[in-house]
Order: sequence, then structure tokens, then C-alpha cells
Amino acid sequence: MAHRVVIALGGNALGNNLPEQMIATRQTAKAIVDLIEEGCEVVIAHGNGPQVGMIQNAMSELVRSDPEKYITVPLSVCVAMSQGYIGYDLQNAMREEMLDRGIDVGVATVLTQVEVDPNDPAFTNPTKPIGAFMTKEEAQKLVEERNYNVMEDAGRGYRRVVASPQPVSIVEIGTIKSLVETNHVVIACGGGGIPVFKTEGHHLKGAAAVIDKDFAAEVLAEQVDADTLIILTAVEKVAIHFGKPDQVELSDLSTDEAKKHIAHGEFAPGSMLPKVQAAVRFAESKPGRKALITLLDKARDGISGKTGTMIHV
Amino acid sequence: MAHRVVIALGGNALGNNLPEQMIATRQTAKAIVDLIEEGCEVVIAHGNGPQVGMIQNAMSELVRSDPEKYITVPLSVCVAMSQGYIGYDLQNAMREEMLDRGIDVGVATVLTQVEVDPNDPAFTNPTKPIGAFMTKEEAQKLVEERNYNVMEDAGRGYRRVVASPQPVSIVEIGTIKSLVETNHVVIACGGGGIPVFKTEGHHLKGAAAVIDKDFAAEVLAEQVDADTLIILTAVEKVAIHFGKPDQVELSDLSTDEAKKHIAHGEFAPGSMLPKVQAAVRFAESKPGRKALITLLDKARDGISGKTGTMIHV
Repeated sequence: MAHRVVIALGGNALGNNLPEQMIATRQTAKAIVDLIEEGCEVVIAHGNGPQVGMIQNAMSELVRSDPEKYITVPLSVCVAMSQGYIGYDLQNAMREEMLDRGIDVGVATVLTQVEVDPNDPAFTNPTKPIGAFMTKEEAQKLVEERNYNVMEDAGRGYRRVVASPQPVSIVEIGTIKSLVETNHVVIACGGGGIPVFKTEGHHLKGAAAVIDKDFAAEVLAEQVDADTLIILTAVEKVAIHFGKPDQVELSDLSTDEAKKHIAHGEFAPGSMLPKVQAAVRFAESKPGRKALITLLDKARDGISGKTGTMIHV
Repeated sequence: MAHRVVIALGGNALGNNLPEQMIATRQTAKAIVDLIEEGCEVVIAHGNGPQVGMIQNAMSELVRSDPEKYITVPLSVCVAMSQGYIGYDLQNAMREEMLDRGIDVGVATVLTQVEVDPNDPAFTNPTKPIGAFMTKEEAQKLVEERNYNVMEDAGRGYRRVVASPQPVSIVEIGTIKSLVETNHVVIACGGGGIPVFKTEGHHLKGAAAVIDKDFAAEVLAEQVDADTLIILTAVEKVAIHFGKPDQVELSDLSTDEAKKHIAHGEFAPGSMLPKVQAAVRFAESKPGRKALITLLDKARDGISGKTGTMIHV
């Protein structure tokens, strides 16, 4: 039995727009409250791809509408807004589901910053596309005026690309721990966290970057001393030879086997690869820790060992 | 000496745009950390007028740019985003100032909902203008299509108007208390809180409303059992006959005197009036409670009784 778990929620748990989000978060809350009924203390991390994209696009349209009055809103600030946007629905869905089941646990969304290393090699090779598609001219203007990196995306136009550095540490970890220890479900590290790096003194400066939410959830799980990291995604089990006739679903995966599969290119970058990497990191971070990858609505069965892929040393 | 204080920050403490906000929050943090050095436990509530206006305008521009793809973002969601936007800068400014002074206190921004009464008379008489100016045609479209209330604003065009109902209760009060009791400065009720009302069961529904931040701070101060409510604003002391030759600044104001001045129309609606009303409510809510109204940079002197207006029973 797991006791303290960090759950990483993917896009399918949140929907792609506001009406979808309200429905999706209710389904998500049911699955998570199942775990609370099994006796788990829960911390929730989540992605924000469509949401931060929408916010970034809105802020770009605002500047376009009145360039004299408005200035570009940095990506880190858009992530902060997306934590409010998603946390609002997610905490209400959790609150309602717990009250419906007579569970007396609080729920709180904590605005979370995640420290990254300014020397992370990701900063020299930005690859993560964000925001709206642009014409070549619009893209070139941003390159010249704001030193943005842009990339042509499969004939559909140009998009800004930003770095996706590794998370180093959760700035608000003390707050998150205080709330877990006073009987709260905590929603933290939304969108992988607001990426910041330390500058002179104690100053934290927003980074033009996006942190992978599975890696952020892994660091969060280590720092909150969870015993299980649960990564909820669109498949019930991790598979090798994925999508081929000889596909094999894995119920139990040692970190050594997982690393071999990673070396053989079994997992798709930007999809299953970061999830398995995060799972391996967590399982190897301290004896007894393990990670579960499964479908949202299989979370309860997964934590009971009935399905999903459990990654362990 | 005050021990537990709730501070209500007005617009001047936050600036009108992103660069102003980064500078203003640093000045604000200095004044607040002065109070922490005096031994206060601090909870911070703040306004969001320019910020939520900016977010609302951005979301409107987004819908204008692609009405097929995007739908209007409700005001309550815009308030949630503004809590992330402002909290991010404010908590970092607080964090930095405390670390600079060697103060080991955490700081957390808690996404906060504030319950309002669906039968509040304010809903039948919306008066609070929000968002961008529109043409008569644009305004009429919103009236017809979305049942918005609009108002002509002094020849400058039309604006949407929303209700400003009274706050009833802070949904996340348990979380805020837990954090205060575990050595945190808490930023809560941003923009007066996300306005919600209870519907069937435990469901909370976002209200198309804006809650006055001074009234929200007052309810917060009661519910967190503060002994002092501090309302920081653009004047050092509350005055009667304000702006006239016989203006009198008040250092000490009983709630009975305050109510007389209110009845005589001494305080401007939407400006000093809600501040004095909030101060009176708090001072009368429990024996020993008092409220201070003063300038941001006089907070320390005010709490020591050297300046500002202290409102008490």
C-alpha cells in the first residue's frame, strides 16, 4: 500500500479548453479521490500545454491590438496564470468529490516555482514549440526584436521554440510539505512549475522555458518524500515494440530493464520516454520508492497492483 | 502591539502593468517585512483592477482573433489567472526581502475563492465597470448574445458592468490558517477572491462579479482571527472635509464617530468609503479588534501608533 503519492496528470486529465476542462477535472477527481479512500496522502502535479498556449496567444493578441499600451508578457508569467486557471477547476472538482464522499480533507493550489540551472544544455538547444503559428515575417520580427528562437513546423507555419531544462528544486517545497502534513491535497508544480533561476543574492528570475511536468513531478515526489510517483496517461501499461504486431505490455519493470529499453529506443521522445525516465529516476532515488504508470481511471487498481506498469529497483 | 494582521493592498502597492508591478511589489515587500520584524504574523490580500482588466482584454482579443476556436473566458477564471499573475511577483518580492533580512518565514500564494450570496442585491444592480471600452454596436451585441450589462462611460465608449456583491465566507480559510500556523506569510483573496456561490450539493459556481478587496480582506481578517486589519492606501490618514480648506485628518476614530461621518457622506464611494466601512465592520466584529488605515510606507509607524488612522470600538 502506498501512503504518500505524487500524481502527475497529463493533458487528457485536463481537456483542451475551458468546457472540456470542467468535465475532465471531474473525472480526474473521481480517480484521485479513489486513491485517498485507499489511504493515500496526495500531491497533484499537472501539465498545461493547451492552457498556457491559449494564454500566450491571448497575450500576443493583446499586444497586436495595442502595441503602444501593452508589452509582451513573459512565458514564466503565462505559466503563473495557467496555474490559477487550471488549479481553480481542479481544486473545485477535488473539493466537490471529497465532500460528496464525506472525506474531510482540504485542497489547496499552491503557486509553485521550480528552479532550473541557467547552464542547462537545453538553453542552447530550444526545442519545445509553444504558442500560435506565425507567418515567416512575424517569426523573423520576433527573432530580430526579441531574440526568440523560432522553428518551421511541418508546413503549418512558424512557432516559437523554448528550452525544456531539467527541474532542480521546488522553491515552495516547505509550503507543500506543511499542507500535506496538515491534511491537505495539494495541487502544485502546475505546468511543470514556473521556471526560475537564481541570480545574484536570493533573487529568482523567470526563465523563458517550459519544464516537463513528469520530471517536475519526480523532483516534487523526491522532495516531499513520497513513496510512490504515479504518472497517469493515455495507456494502461507501458509497452515495448509499441504499435507493432509483437507489442508487449509490461506489468512489472525493473529500473535496469527500463534503462535497456530506453537505450534501444523503445519509448517515444516527448511521449512515453520522459515518463519512463522520470519513473526510473524516482525508483532509484531512495530504497523502497517505486513509480506507477497507468490510465487515469485505473489508478486505484494500479496502486493495488492489479494493473498498470510498476517501475522499481 | 499587533500580533496577527491582515493587510489589504490597493492598486498603488502593485502598479498598473508588469514592469511597474515588479518595482511596486518590492517597495510593498519592504513595508510588510517591517511589520514581520515588529513581530506580526501577516496575511496579505490585494486588489487586481488593472491586472484583471488586462487579462479580460487579452481574452476578448483572443476570441476576436478566432471566434470559431475560442470562447469567452468567464470573469471568475480571469480573477483566478490574476491571482497567479500578481502572486508570482508579490511572493518573490516578499521571499527576497525576508531572505535579505535573515527572516526564516515561508511565503505562499493560495488560490482563493470567496463565497457570495446569489440573492445579494448587487446582482440586480451591477455598477462596477470592467474590461476594455467598446463601441455601441459591440456593447449591444454582448447584451443580446450574452446577457451582459453595459454602461456608457463618460463619452469614452461603452464598458461591461458587473455586480460587486458582499463577501460572505472564504472557501480556503482552513488552508490559509494552516499556513499561518506553520510560519508562513500567506497571500490570499487576490482581487477580492474568485467570486463563487453555492449551488446544489457542494458545487461552487463562478459568479460574474468582482468583490471589493477591502471587504474581502475584512472577512478574511475575521475568519483568520486577526487582531488588526491594515488597509494600505494613498493617504496617510483618513480625513473629513477631504480636499476642502477645513480638512481634518483623523488619528483616532471610534466606530460610532466613523458611522456618523459615513452618514454625512464624508467618504467617497469606491474610494475611502469601503475602506472605512470595512474598518468599522472589523473593529465591531469582536472585542479588542481594530483597524488601521494609512500609507504603504507608514505601515510600521502606524502599527506602533505613530501615524495613520486607528479605527476601534
